[in-house]
Amino acid sequence: MTMQDARTREIGWHKGYLEGSRPDLRVPVRRVHLTDGNDVTLYDTSGPYTDPSVETDVRRGLAPLRQNWIVARGDTEEYSGRPVRPEDDGLRHTSPRGGLRNLDAVFPGRPRLPRRGLPGRPVTQLAYARRGEVTPEMEFAALREGLSPETVREEIAAGRAVLPANVNHPEIEPMVIGKRFLVKVNANIGNSAVTSSIEEEVEKMTWATRWGADTVMDLSTGRNIHTTREWVLRNSPVPIGTVPLYQALEKVDGRAEELSWEIYRDTVVEQAEQGVDYMTVHAGVLLRYVPLTARRKTGIVSRGGSIMAAWCLAHHRESFLYENFEELCDILAAYDVTFSLGDGLRPGSIADANDEAQFAELRTLGELNTIAKRHHVQTMIEGPGHVPMHKIKENIDLQQEVCEEAPFYTLGPLTTDIAPAYDHITSGIGAAMIAWWGTAMLCYVTPKEHLGLPDRDDVKTGVITYKIAAHAADLAKGHPGAQAWDDALSDARFEFRWEDQFNLALDPDTARAFHDETLPAEPAKTAHFCSMCGPKFCSMRISQDIRRTHGGDSGAASAGVSEGVDPELDAEIAAGMAAKSAEFAAAGNRVYLPLAE
Amino acid sequence: MTMQDARTREIGWHKGYLEGSRPDLRVPVRRVHLTDGNDVTLYDTSGPYTDPSVETDVRRGLAPLRQNWIVARGDTEEYSGRPVRPEDDGLRHTSPRGGLRNLDAVFPGRPRLPRRGLPGRPVTQLAYARRGEVTPEMEFAALREGLSPETVREEIAAGRAVLPANVNHPEIEPMVIGKRFLVKVNANIGNSAVTSSIEEEVEKMTWATRWGADTVMDLSTGRNIHTTREWVLRNSPVPIGTVPLYQALEKVDGRAEELSWEIYRDTVVEQAEQGVDYMTVHAGVLLRYVPLTARRKTGIVSRGGSIMAAWCLAHHRESFLYENFEELCDILAAYDVTFSLGDGLRPGSIADANDEAQFAELRTLGELNTIAKRHHVQTMIEGPGHVPMHKIKENIDLQQEVCEEAPFYTLGPLTTDIAPAYDHITSGIGAAMIAWWGTAMLCYVTPKEHLGLPDRDDVKTGVITYKIAAHAADLAKGHPGAQAWDDALSDARFEFRWEDQFNLALDPDTARAFHDETLPAEPAKTAHFCSMCGPKFCSMRISQDIRRTHGGDSGAASAGVSEGVDPELDAEIAAGMAAKSAEFAAAGNRVYLPLAE
Repeated sequence: MTMQDARTREIGWHKGYLEGSRPDLRVPVRRVHLTDGNDVTLYDTSGPYTDPSVETDVRRGLAPLRQNWIVARGDTEEYSGRPVRPEDDGLRHTSPRGGLRNLDAVFPGRPRLPRRGLPGRPVTQLAYARRGEVTPEMEFAALREGLSPETVREEIAAGRAVLPANVNHPEIEPMVIGKRFLVKVNANIGNSAVTSSIEEEVEKMTWATRWGADTVMDLSTGRNIHTTREWVLRNSPVPIGTVPLYQALEKVDGRAEELSWEIYRDTVVEQAEQGVDYMTVHAGVLLRYVPLTARRKTGIVSRGGSIMAAWCLAHHRESFLYENFEELCDILAAYDVTFSLGDGLRPGSIADANDEAQFAELRTLGELNTIAKRHHVQTMIEGPGHVPMHKIKENIDLQQEVCEEAPFYTLGPLTTDIAPAYDHITSGIGAAMIAWWGTAMLCYVTPKEHLGLPDRDDVKTGVITYKIAAHAADLAKGHPGAQAWDDALSDARFEFRWEDQFNLALDPDTARAFHDETLPAEPAKTAHFCSMCGPKFCSMRISQDIRRTHGGDSGAASAGVSEGVDPELDAEIAAGMAAKSAEFAAAGNRVYLPLAE
Repeated sequence: MTMQDARTREIGWHKGYLEGSRPDLRVPVRRVHLTDGNDVTLYDTSGPYTDPSVETDVRRGLAPLRQNWIVARGDTEEYSGRPVRPEDDGLRHTSPRGGLRNLDAVFPGRPRLPRRGLPGRPVTQLAYARRGEVTPEMEFAALREGLSPETVREEIAAGRAVLPANVNHPEIEPMVIGKRFLVKVNANIGNSAVTSSIEEEVEKMTWATRWGADTVMDLSTGRNIHTTREWVLRNSPVPIGTVPLYQALEKVDGRAEELSWEIYRDTVVEQAEQGVDYMTVHAGVLLRYVPLTARRKTGIVSRGGSIMAAWCLAHHRESFLYENFEELCDILAAYDVTFSLGDGLRPGSIADANDEAQFAELRTLGELNTIAKRHHVQTMIEGPGHVPMHKIKENIDLQQEVCEEAPFYTLGPLTTDIAPAYDHITSGIGAAMIAWWGTAMLCYVTPKEHLGLPDRDDVKTGVITYKIAAHAADLAKGHPGAQAWDDALSDARFEFRWEDQFNLALDPDTARAFHDETLPAEPAKTAHFCSMCGPKFCSMRISQDIRRTHGGDSGAASAGVSEGVDPELDAEIAAGMAAKSAEFAAAGNRVYLPLAE
């Protein structure tokens, strides 16, 4: 997306900031201007890119918003760090582009040394929360949610929420993931040997966050993994997640059996030093679980899961991720990298949902969650997959039970397999339901799922669909303030303030375009009729007449009604109806309205 | 859609027929040809248009499939019928196009006299079912569902299902609507003063049924209502529904207060003689309920509801639909027109969901349902609207309670108001849930909802989205055979039979197009890798290797696993894994697969 696009899309709203308890704590919000003079304030994930007063340059990266907060805590140190090698980018020494110097030169932004916790000091938000400290990150996230900083601290301390924030990713605008907070949405990007370039991935990231992605996972494989990730991290206002196993596999030229704990650990350190905020680790795929998938309809569909399954089969040994999990915890604790314990054995079809392989792994993830917490590492648990509606609740209930209410992070679930090209919808249905029941973050699915790699339009469609699912769940969970957005749009709809409806929409561009398709441009936007009923008749207008007759404002509206009508209102209404009758006659019994009105 | 399109879209499947108990009872099905030589049989709503052996001509209409069945029952008579008047098409006498002769000439198909039940004889499927008769229509619908004809009869007799089949619409392929059967989807078409023509409406109807619409509602307003309906009915293989009030309003030039029982009744007879299979009647909008909407956020959003509200206000009298309901029942019983009791006070926003106005009307619909049944008139009840997820179940539970389990027919519900241009998705989420809980038919919502009139692409998107919701509900309800479709597609996916995946998809064209976008054409479609993981790596293949080692076929697959692994399988697996290790070594520990393989 060019900044040109951004500017034009900003008509009708502006970037605003909520002031925190300190001058360097400013929380971005989207302020939508209504034609009635009011503003509606919405959660904003788009970063500095939508602030005209900020000059962004993808070659320099974003300003390190959190740098002072991290340094001020005095529990971290800069150090020389692990030397970057050509293999990190999947380049052989024979490669003309190989060589350390080239790599360093790839990202032109400010030079930086990696940072880590002082020896033996966990520098995680979990550790701070447990000590009773409300960090600036927690206050920042709380302001975005419209909740108290103490609530955020409590949820993180209890392990019911995570605040992914690697000390080496100071550019992020802190956010919190947990069932008591707004449901979050993750968008996946990442090149593969098939297609896509570094620039495209950075653009996909800014594009996804502009439409509402709360976090982004870089699932790149093949060439330039390290460099792509560096560009994405330095330009990302949201937490970035990865699956280190993918890069580790590249380092052994794709031979799963040649993977080792040493190679994997080295890759984790490499990514932690770059600033990856959370990592998917498939440590629950145990040797003994692999055979449980033998008679599945679609076997193992998680890439990480099948890599680990292959390793276990090749060596006939237990997973090196499982056996070295405690050491892994200590590494993540030193950078505040959050665990996303991967569901390598998730079901890949309706037929395989909730089977023994899936739930056996989930119970193991529960054990690992307990170990990670002991090491003060923030942890979320990944789930579903393909699950029919009647089997969804069992997933969240079991996860909450065996994982001590750790945040659940689910892919969909897809509620049927019969609609390839529409799996954003088959999964959006399941995502809304599982989020209502307690899932904290939803991993989006695009229309290209099962068919190919998503392009720019697919990313947008996937994000919008999942923002719908997440917000529908926020409403159902009764998140404070969630309904204000719906109410504002409903009021605009009832009053035929078309421009307000567009600007309040998740996708103003498309809403505006669709409206223009069937109605004359300007007049129609203010005319008192609904295009669904033709140009003259207007059902809503009748209600407006009724209201005008009976008094009462839309504010207390439905609440008042649903609690029953009091006698006073009855009387008022009786009188109003008599007046109404006269009114009707006086107006020549006209139900229709001239287009001009 | 041209027949050319139809032909090309038929590659990979053909139109088949299930033979009933009599030679003239042939039930259409879609037989998908798999590359492994097997066929998958799917429910088919597309009518004769997809049968290359049938010559269709929209100017002559479809063959009267049910004519002999209706005549053979000997309980109906042909009669001269109500004279067609220019006003029926919204034409004034001054109109140059006015005049009876012109109107008769408008539909060139075979001349016919209307038919009705002999005096005092209800000729409804409900009356037959109560008498213990299994009609050819019931057997036809049962074969489509894969259930026994007796089950269909029982459900209709109990009022838990309806089989909309006007004696004047012999062209339809009978289908049944009820919670024990496959969830059905209705698509709305209809011109308005704003746009669209007769030809367009007929094409929208055939287009909607081609993608899976089980019924179609013609919501035309403005000019040529009568003639448009005639063309749609004569060419429709699915039941057609209408809202007679819309045409009645045109006859009084849009002045609601000039509506009368006489004008309404005349319109109902006119439409019943044409063959309308079910009619939405807003008889539950009572004078005393109107004020309950005064303080709503979005008032009355149902067009029929606001017309009746206006009439009640103008006259300060009770609804003429409510007061003449028993006479209306006798008219519908004489043609077997099914009631769709309209929810004129449905909520138009999240804020208004489940309020007193909505549920007061629902209880009245319950009373009317009891009266209609007494007159042997088949009846379904309309519902939601805009309803947040946590308030959806209350709607279906209350409806089932107060309407004696009569089929519920719901619009969506939309689970949030913030996504205009995506309301097929906001409502698809609610539709899947309410259908799982017992709703029998879903009225689709297109991306243009609230913004404009749907075009051809919107109709397709709306139907596909709702077929997804309906099928997800069929899976969750455990409809016998529903999962076979998913299993067939999952098997094809696991075995990388791309063409089979496309042909089994709800929308083969789009699935095929998306796949082609990111992968080389032919080779990729048979190559053993998944495009999501790049060209070489294949997680599913690993599972195939595991399976090959451990034996077991995909058939009994997951069932066996989810019931737990028996010792025998354990042993088999242990042996298999040893062999697997050797296999790995022998194959040079290759996890990757060459593209060619």
